Amino acid sequence: MAIATRTVTEACAAAKGAARDMARADDQAKGRALERIAELLGERSDEVLEANRADLDDERARSLGSALRDRLTLSDERVRAMAEGVRAVAALPDPVGEVVEERTLASGIEMTKVRVPLGVVAVIYEARPNVTVDCAALCIKSGNAIVLRGSSYAQRSNAALAALVAEGLESADLPQAAVQLLSGGRDELAELATQEGVVDLVIPRGGEGLKDALKAVATVPVMYAAAGNCHVYVHDDADLEMARKVAVNAKVDRPGVCNAAETLLVSDRVASDFLPGVLEDLAAAGVELVGDERARAAAGDAEVGEASAEDWDTEYLDLKMAVGIVDSLDAAIDHVNSHGTGHSEAIVTSSEEAAEAFAGAVDAAAVYVNASTRFTDGFEFGMGAEIGNSTQKLHARGPIGLRELTTTKYVLRGDGQVR
Amino acid sequence: MAIATRTVTEACAAAKGAARDMARADDQAKGRALERIAELLGERSDEVLEANRADLDDERARSLGSALRDRLTLSDERVRAMAEGVRAVAALPDPVGEVVEERTLASGIEMTKVRVPLGVVAVIYEARPNVTVDCAALCIKSGNAIVLRGSSYAQRSNAALAALVAEGLESADLPQAAVQLLSGGRDELAELATQEGVVDLVIPRGGEGLKDALKAVATVPVMYAAAGNCHVYVHDDADLEMARKVAVNAKVDRPGVCNAAETLLVSDRVASDFLPGVLEDLAAAGVELVGDERARAAAGDAEVGEASAEDWDTEYLDLKMAVGIVDSLDAAIDHVNSHGTGHSEAIVTSSEEAAEAFAGAVDAAAVYVNASTRFTDGFEFGMGAEIGNSTQKLHARGPIGLRELTTTKYVLRGDGQVR
Repeated sequence: MAIATRTVTEACAAAKGAARDMARADDQAKGRALERIAELLGERSDEVLEANRADLDDERARSLGSALRDRLTLSDERVRAMAEGVRAVAALPDPVGEVVEERTLASGIEMTKVRVPLGVVAVIYEARPNVTVDCAALCIKSGNAIVLRGSSYAQRSNAALAALVAEGLESADLPQAAVQLLSGGRDELAELATQEGVVDLVIPRGGEGLKDALKAVATVPVMYAAAGNCHVYVHDDADLEMARKVAVNAKVDRPGVCNAAETLLVSDRVASDFLPGVLEDLAAAGVELVGDERARAAAGDAEVGEASAEDWDTEYLDLKMAVGIVDSLDAAIDHVNSHGTGHSEAIVTSSEEAAEAFAGAVDAAAVYVNASTRFTDGFEFGMGAEIGNSTQKLHARGPIGLRELTTTKYVLRGDGQVR
Repeated sequence: MAIATRTVTEACAAAKGAARDMARADDQAKGRALERIAELLGERSDEVLEANRADLDDERARSLGSALRDRLTLSDERVRAMAEGVRAVAALPDPVGEVVEERTLASGIEMTKVRVPLGVVAVIYEARPNVTVDCAALCIKSGNAIVLRGSSYAQRSNAALAALVAEGLESADLPQAAVQLLSGGRDELAELATQEGVVDLVIPRGGEGLKDALKAVATVPVMYAAAGNCHVYVHDDADLEMARKVAVNAKVDRPGVCNAAETLLVSDRVASDFLPGVLEDLAAAGVELVGDERARAAAGDAEVGEASAEDWDTEYLDLKMAVGIVDSLDAAIDHVNSHGTGHSEAIVTSSEEAAEAFAGAVDAAAVYVNASTRFTDGFEFGMGAEIGNSTQKLHARGPIGLRELTTTKYVLRGDGQVR
């Protein structure tokens, strides 16, 4: 893989060429490639870890904060987890060739709507080397070629991993060019996002800055994942013990991810019973609390600051939560639809009617009844790994797995029909 | 409907408000609205025709060419056809609430993936008043609110038709605001295409100029339909009589539409047998022919001009066709994938193997074996009316019907699950 010497345009063109062979590859060949990649991750983990150490020892990487440095860091265990992930993807059903619809048209033509790969998928991501392997595995299994644009901080780790992926492809007689790694330079974004007719989809995995940069220049399709300003609403008939567990889990299990809850809404009828306990748990877990006037009045011993108007629209991605009181189910739904980002929203209730009303009216990729918002995830949804999470309404909404990396083609067989 | 006094932003906001009620409407209510619209088209066709005459008599409309004037013109028969179209849409299965997937997750959560309306769909179209009713019917049935941005040439006709649609909605206790008609001014496009969070999808039905204008400004999702540079390839083992009918039909049945063929590719092994006859038919139908050197040599008596490099990439939308000779099935596939626009592509062959190879390798929304490309159409595909035709790979590929006007929502029911 002559990474450094290729332009983005050359890399994308090479991927496009390889995409035709990938689209035709049968599940056995793709399975062999993936199994070999998993094996290579075991056999050659030393190479990968050495490259990773070089990334970590680089002058620039020394200035990274501890969370970012941790994300960049690989270990034996993390490499093993990657290999397991690759095998898990290999074990999933092949989406390519799946017949979505089939019928005989009035004209007598036999119509089949069949899943086919998108072609060339580009992923832009931060300094997390495991993403290199996760995304490559999903794209191989779904018959796509992939252009990986990781962070320059992880360049050596990514190159080592992409080399193993290419070797795995070759061992199954699949084109090595189906995986392309870019160097991670800033100037690559615009070139990548304007490969019309070559790149079929760009998936940005990163912050708002990356999304804004792409929106300004992209002429190829981009699947944007909005931030996750997720809510847990506790209805007046909720099992309050369950509500407490769900609210705390949704906030503190992993506060830095997009399916974590940012706002707790509580029915005014149960606020004084419910809030003191749950806020105590949240505070004990280190959560900074802000609330509206009524929430602060019902908070008991917990310290709750004053919520500003912006708090209701903020994805903290941190141990902070806004707490609001609502007068009715409709008010809760309105709040969620006004302030939410369409990611994951939860209600805790013992009423089927309230559950139906909330699930029906809330406009989001995933709506939970009596469960934590934290389950919006390709693994949890049984889709294997995910390449991202979409809050768009078009194409895919929710985790982007194998099927979401395909499109469809109508194949129509006739015996000479004309109009 | 106070059309003239509303800004685009106000109209879109009103549609957004109505979209919530539309999403909740059951199929009976939507059916009552559609049936009433069909009745009103009968009862009040005089009003519609009078408005149409005013549009036709307008100073500006007098300068329209005959084809455009014909598209703008309504008649009793055309209004009756609209009413029939509305009833046909009403009779289709309601896509809203359709369960796409359903399973119990490892966590015990019951997951359901269900179809829900997109929300607010905006359609931008030319001076064809029937599109007003077709699109409104599809959006009502699929539970969406619609913003119609027709041509100013058809403003009075569109207003009369939209008023009947609104009346039909009201008669079924559905919000009249679910149909919004803009005035057709040029300045509306940018305002419409930047209604982020309000307009969920813009569908442009128009030429390349409209698409380019939208690409430059749109921040909301737009479903673009590429031009249709469609091919008919005649393989060496084709039934030549069938091939002749298919090629002629694909070109001349309706040359001005996107699923008409623009290029005829012929295997070199049958060129001299096949070309003289089919080219004679095409010439007799008034088709201007251009071809490569070998096609011209094998043309027999037909007059075939010299094809330029641009001819292979041109969507004539007219009685003109390019004719090329290819050495192999692979060469035909390469030609189609290099020059096609991913719309509709046909092979005529008696070999299952060649059919499979062509259908598998050609990258298009619809691939035909032994049938005319002209069948790519919502009606022909049994989807009822269509609101457009997508050559994009994301979300919908091919005719955009009721299902394609929906998105999905994951609804997850648990009993207190946390991670």
